[in-house]
Amino acid sequence: MWRTIGRQSGPVFRIPAPFPGPAAVVRRYVLGSQCYFHSKSSDNFEALATSAKLPEAKPVPPVTPSQRITVNDILERRAKSGRLVAPTAAACDADMFKAPSTNKPFAKKWDDHHLSKEAISREPCKLKQAARFLKTPGIISLGGGLPCPEYFPFSSLSMGVSIPPNFSESSPTETITINKYDASQGNTKAEYDLSIGLNYAQAHGSAQMMRFVTEHTELVHSPPYADWKTCLTVGSTGALEQALRLLCQKSRGDTILTEEFSFSTALETATPLGVKVVGVKMDSEGILPSSLDKILSNWTNARGGRRKPHVLYTVPSGQNPTGATQSIQRRREVYAIAQQHDLFIIEDEPYYFLQLQDKTKPTPENVDQFLDSLIPSLLSLDTDGRVLRMDSFSKCVVPGSRLGWITASSQIVERFIRHAEVANQGPSGFSQLILHKLLDETWGHEGYLKWLMNLRLEYTQRRDTLLAACEKYLPKEVATWSSPKAGMFFWVNLNHQLHPNASTKSILDVEEEIFNSCIKKRVLVARGSWFRAEQDKPPTGLFLRATFAAATPESMTEAIKRFGEAVRESYGL
Amino acid sequence: MWRTIGRQSGPVFRIPAPFPGPAAVVRRYVLGSQCYFHSKSSDNFEALATSAKLPEAKPVPPVTPSQRITVNDILERRAKSGRLVAPTAAACDADMFKAPSTNKPFAKKWDDHHLSKEAISREPCKLKQAARFLKTPGIISLGGGLPCPEYFPFSSLSMGVSIPPNFSESSPTETITINKYDASQGNTKAEYDLSIGLNYAQAHGSAQMMRFVTEHTELVHSPPYADWKTCLTVGSTGALEQALRLLCQKSRGDTILTEEFSFSTALETATPLGVKVVGVKMDSEGILPSSLDKILSNWTNARGGRRKPHVLYTVPSGQNPTGATQSIQRRREVYAIAQQHDLFIIEDEPYYFLQLQDKTKPTPENVDQFLDSLIPSLLSLDTDGRVLRMDSFSKCVVPGSRLGWITASSQIVERFIRHAEVANQGPSGFSQLILHKLLDETWGHEGYLKWLMNLRLEYTQRRDTLLAACEKYLPKEVATWSSPKAGMFFWVNLNHQLHPNASTKSILDVEEEIFNSCIKKRVLVARGSWFRAEQDKPPTGLFLRATFAAATPESMTEAIKRFGEAVRESYGL
Repeated sequence: MWRTIGRQSGPVFRIPAPFPGPAAVVRRYVLGSQCYFHSKSSDNFEALATSAKLPEAKPVPPVTPSQRITVNDILERRAKSGRLVAPTAAACDADMFKAPSTNKPFAKKWDDHHLSKEAISREPCKLKQAARFLKTPGIISLGGGLPCPEYFPFSSLSMGVSIPPNFSESSPTETITINKYDASQGNTKAEYDLSIGLNYAQAHGSAQMMRFVTEHTELVHSPPYADWKTCLTVGSTGALEQALRLLCQKSRGDTILTEEFSFSTALETATPLGVKVVGVKMDSEGILPSSLDKILSNWTNARGGRRKPHVLYTVPSGQNPTGATQSIQRRREVYAIAQQHDLFIIEDEPYYFLQLQDKTKPTPENVDQFLDSLIPSLLSLDTDGRVLRMDSFSKCVVPGSRLGWITASSQIVERFIRHAEVANQGPSGFSQLILHKLLDETWGHEGYLKWLMNLRLEYTQRRDTLLAACEKYLPKEVATWSSPKAGMFFWVNLNHQLHPNASTKSILDVEEEIFNSCIKKRVLVARGSWFRAEQDKPPTGLFLRATFAAATPESMTEAIKRFGEAVRESYGL
Repeated sequence: MWRTIGRQSGPVFRIPAPFPGPAAVVRRYVLGSQCYFHSKSSDNFEALATSAKLPEAKPVPPVTPSQRITVNDILERRAKSGRLVAPTAAACDADMFKAPSTNKPFAKKWDDHHLSKEAISREPCKLKQAARFLKTPGIISLGGGLPCPEYFPFSSLSMGVSIPPNFSESSPTETITINKYDASQGNTKAEYDLSIGLNYAQAHGSAQMMRFVTEHTELVHSPPYADWKTCLTVGSTGALEQALRLLCQKSRGDTILTEEFSFSTALETATPLGVKVVGVKMDSEGILPSSLDKILSNWTNARGGRRKPHVLYTVPSGQNPTGATQSIQRRREVYAIAQQHDLFIIEDEPYYFLQLQDKTKPTPENVDQFLDSLIPSLLSLDTDGRVLRMDSFSKCVVPGSRLGWITASSQIVERFIRHAEVANQGPSGFSQLILHKLLDETWGHEGYLKWLMNLRLEYTQRRDTLLAACEKYLPKEVATWSSPKAGMFFWVNLNHQLHPNASTKSILDVEEEIFNSCIKKRVLVARGSWFRAEQDKPPTGLFLRATFAAATPESMTEAIKRFGEAVRESYGL
């Protein structure tokens, strides 16, 4: 989906295909510019809280080619920047780790039409702000109540980790170790250690881990506006609640739009905030642009006095629960409607890298080909800065890290950080240390991308196993499904009208009957009705969700056999 | 503060001294009762989500002796219960890990006077609820999208840790290891491993870690009502925001009470929620009961139409910023006023175990003496279930764990968990695994209490260093302070009226002048005004806060010297 358009002893640019404009408008990144926070030597205890300055830039036409730099460009930039010096509770900013965004436009500024009063009223955390004085050379802090690392009962942390190119569990592992004072007192090249990572930190996360996710975001998405930022999160579950509190307000009668079947936990997040959810019709490519436009164009206050929705929550790849994946064309259409109706978009993408292998296309052989093969994200199309993208390590590394990140415009990320300061103070230091040691120091960007390349092939096999089982065991006379192009979920549609008791048993009744029958037959599936965006409306179809993430291939096949039996029994087949 | 009143080949009971009733009313715990979740052998994939049943109990008079069991009782109970079997995402409940609370009263039930609409409206997370079916023997899950642990790139996690009785950094450490399948596939006694801890989990935290904090809470606080529960948190910062959203509601005009100088981050948490904060007068023992009662007794809607406060937020031990510690008598008085005015109490106790050594009393020689020496918590006085206590490992182990827990009544904890499911999904699995390995498997309760005994002596030395420096370098003609009995903070009061420019320079002006002068002299202190509960009222005194947590003893002394110079210069001394 991306193609490489040039390499001139510098960065490579990839643009979404089909490329909408002349190659000549592609702009170059400048490497090696002054970068705050990097230094060949430093005795600063605390680093600068001020944001790095962005270069001056002229606005550019909204439709521009997206751009990407390569792993080698990152390595080159890091070599020029020198060792990252980011001690305890160091404030940082994604700009410190990005290539200068020459000529890119700046993001749109959002006002109290889009932001909540709660978000607007937040003040910076005074104690975290005071940390900026710690950059004063020779200063002694009697300020913040940060415990001395001498009272941390951990001297080192080691882990056995998988190593490219053989990631299977039976392949040899490598043992890597983080010592308490590797970076602060040692003479090694280490940039992060237990004495830093296990103390209090800034709510946006450590500079060390923010550098990794910022570079990764630049490699994969290359957001097309200048002032994009990142902020680590405690995972996308928490990030979504923060995003909704940032954008929505009960007293304003706010409504958000989402897929007509949507992630149930997302719905459970919105409802107690007094936010109404309205579902947009879908097909196998997810949100239908015509439905989205119709809802917005025809919105009247008659809908319970609620104002026109200003937020869209969407999972573009491997959508939960339907498994639908938006094509690049679909994403462009959704984004254009968002521009037309001034919608802010929350792009929730836990399954982005689980875009499964299309058997009609060659399997990527290297990371460049892999990145080229990915459908561009909404973030990579976002010339306005109207997307808040949520990324997560839950599906790609481990769910228990409770670590993810958001990418959005500077204004949005700043308000998000103000909330994170009181909502959680950022993710666990253990999680940050361990993921940094693995992803940044051991695997590097290339190793992580290779891990992801391997993972999607594993999930492709799992999908195919479930697909084969469905073909074999589900009654096609009443059940239909399509093969998901991404993610972990299979969405099975049963024709309610063909049920022998359709006239007396509602969709929900039959769904419940089959679900309970499945439990009796010892298989757990998820009921489609759990995911209905509008729980107060009658259901429009009978669905069940099955995942190919959790069970072994043999068990999955057996489970689908049992599920098929439950369906046949209910339908009298 | 506690004394042991009996041991009859069973548990020891300790009661707050002076003991208000006859020893005969002390009731016994029953050990070895049936405990869900423990089994000598089990092949359950998932454990029971249902709460364990509480024994029938008659209400008892509200003033009862608090009771505590010992470390040995816990060991005995665990031996009888057998190995804890709690696989991936197992639901659990503190009742599974408590002694039966025979004859204790049940907590008061809270209604929409105390709880917010947001809290009341929360529904359980459907996908997490579905996990209850996983206890069905032989079930295959195509339900939740939990990744297979074979895709976790970690085979093991090892750590070098301090070992009792020599906790100093220079003492030898022991290396302890968690393997991926220690508990799930291995033949060891392990109860927790990477395959469980790094997958998705319940928002209340793992059963393994909840058992530890529940037993610890029983050992230390022995809450005097039957249906108390625990829930792990992402630290007390996040727990406070959750507690405020649970109890307060902007549209109701809610107000909370707190110390007149209060933790600035707590104030920054409340304000954007539209919650008004009113400060209660203090002395060296913290909140003045007379001021608390006066505010509540004289409350009228004239205060901007706001209804009478229903929540008190307090830090009873080593209060931040003043260092004040409530005596047992003070705590009783505060609790009685809370009962009288139906106040719910948020007890924030990060410094509870940093109760510093009183030189006039013997240093505890064992964990029983240590527990006896601690001032009882508000939780341990809470016969009504009107206290939500927040504990944290930040000050006692490492801040970067972002792991703590709350203790409160069953009703409150259940609503809290409903929010945690969407606010963060519970703390990091890495943090839980590592703290469990250290605290539960390696140190055990006794080892952890010994660590805490050592830690408070270290902080006592640090306090004394700062105290000596203040005696030596601060100008006593204008500066006063008292030696904190707990915590990390020193609160220095400067007499504004004695300032030569008092008539032209306000308290805030002088405070700013001295703060800036300190920065020039390379010492960072915290400005007292940052902590004023009511920022819209004129300040009543001139204060600066200094911590003895962060710097080396030599640096602290030098820092106070510089601070003294800044004060003298400003005052022209």
